Amino acid sequence: MRALFSTALHVGDAAAFSRLVRARRSAGFLDPARPVPPGVIEELVSLTARAPSGFNMQPYRIVMVTDPRARERVACTMLGAANAGRVRDAPLVAVFAADLRSAESVGEVQEMEAAAGGKSPSYLRELPFAVSAFSGSTGGCGELRGAAVGALTSLVGVPLPPFGVPGVAWAYKQTALAAMTYVYAATSKGLATRMMEGLDPGRAADAVGLPAPRFSVPVVVVSGYEVEPQPGGDAPPSPRRVKGVFFRDSAAAGGSSFS
Amino acid sequence: MRALFSTALHVGDAAAFSRLVRARRSAGFLDPARPVPPGVIEELVSLTARAPSGFNMQPYRIVMVTDPRARERVACTMLGAANAGRVRDAPLVAVFAADLRSAESVGEVQEMEAAAGGKSPSYLRELPFAVSAFSGSTGGCGELRGAAVGALTSLVGVPLPPFGVPGVAWAYKQTALAAMTYVYAATSKGLATRMMEGLDPGRAADAVGLPAPRFSVPVVVVSGYEVEPQPGGDAPPSPRRVKGVFFRDSAAAGGSSFS
Repeated sequence: MRALFSTALHVGDAAAFSRLVRARRSAGFLDPARPVPPGVIEELVSLTARAPSGFNMQPYRIVMVTDPRARERVACTMLGAANAGRVRDAPLVAVFAADLRSAESVGEVQEMEAAAGGKSPSYLRELPFAVSAFSGSTGGCGELRGAAVGALTSLVGVPLPPFGVPGVAWAYKQTALAAMTYVYAATSKGLATRMMEGLDPGRAADAVGLPAPRFSVPVVVVSGYEVEPQPGGDAPPSPRRVKGVFFRDSAAAGGSSFS
Repeated sequence: MRALFSTALHVGDAAAFSRLVRARRSAGFLDPARPVPPGVIEELVSLTARAPSGFNMQPYRIVMVTDPRARERVACTMLGAANAGRVRDAPLVAVFAADLRSAESVGEVQEMEAAAGGKSPSYLRELPFAVSAFSGSTGGCGELRGAAVGALTSLVGVPLPPFGVPGVAWAYKQTALAAMTYVYAATSKGLATRMMEGLDPGRAADAVGLPAPRFSVPVVVVSGYEVEPQPGGDAPPSPRRVKGVFFRDSAAAGGSSFS
């Protein structure tokens, strides 16, 4: 039965991902008249849903906006006319909204994990406390966080989360993992994308029916097909810093940087 | 000259990425005796460096830890013995440290972008103000942020970042984009990975020579080759929520959820 859930890669898959990473760039102008087929959107959802998240909590909502009026509502929350115009013209706008009260979903995740099997009873029992500590939110009971600290203390015997890191940073981190997965998935299907963060995070959430302050949008991704000929389409890839950013073993003085 | 910087995908690259996403799962036990070849690590760095980031700031440092003593230092910052053990046994631990004072690198990024071309003089001029607003850090002058608000106000005429979102959330978001890229790159090269956030973010940064509080680690990724036979290697993929997480056009009551 080893092949039942086989997820073996094929020869050439590494080269394919390398092409994908190098093909991805911030899109120029998207063709408003060329929609993304519904089947492609379904596949993007299916792949994006496989992104990892802390405690498998998926602490976000992701809204695939194609309706022009809905796009207009999102456009109005962008900073500046150029950003608003990009959202208006994109046939597909993926809105990634972080859930700052994700602990409210912990019961649902516990049930899902219990049904799937593969997690120990103690994992499932301690999940609310762990999620509470990292997310800075509780599942309805304001005293849960205090309980979380107590429970984790006995478990780990070391300083405890959140270590001064606010829950919004945890939720933004998880949401970014999904957004990055979405962008590579879209690129693999021949879509041009542009990750955009020049927006009002609370108003952008409200625009897709996700009330702030519970929801906050770290990024929207405009997606579609570039207008031909692509302005800048022949441009060299954007530059990157490697030296001073990537290190071997330590970044301390005397450490070795990649270059 | 269209082919000069050609980044065309090949037939089958979408299927390859789909396999990659479905092959990725949180690794079980890694073989401490089987190192990741240096050439593979170089390729991982090269691909991870292509991850997008806000204003191309790359507001992070990424440390590829293979030296056993360096791994031990990181292990000591993990929450709990199980997490520490995973870091100890992993032949490669990629430590992703967010830079909470990334505006200090803005001069370097301005120079790089100017040398590469493709950005307008006004973009380059306004970069420090934009980075200051989003990152919550300044390039050495404490009054720059006030100036940023003034400059952006005249530019956009709408409410301004950071909209109450702390700079750490911005930096964590960017760092997660790089970490997700790393994980898919590693998976594509046959490595098993496990994203881990059960750690003290400041102590983990200190452990790789990046002093807190400037640096804060949202995630480390243990990487290597799983011990055979892989415990759980035939297990079904972990479950995910799609219904109630992914929506069409709006998540408001009456909106349509994917399922």
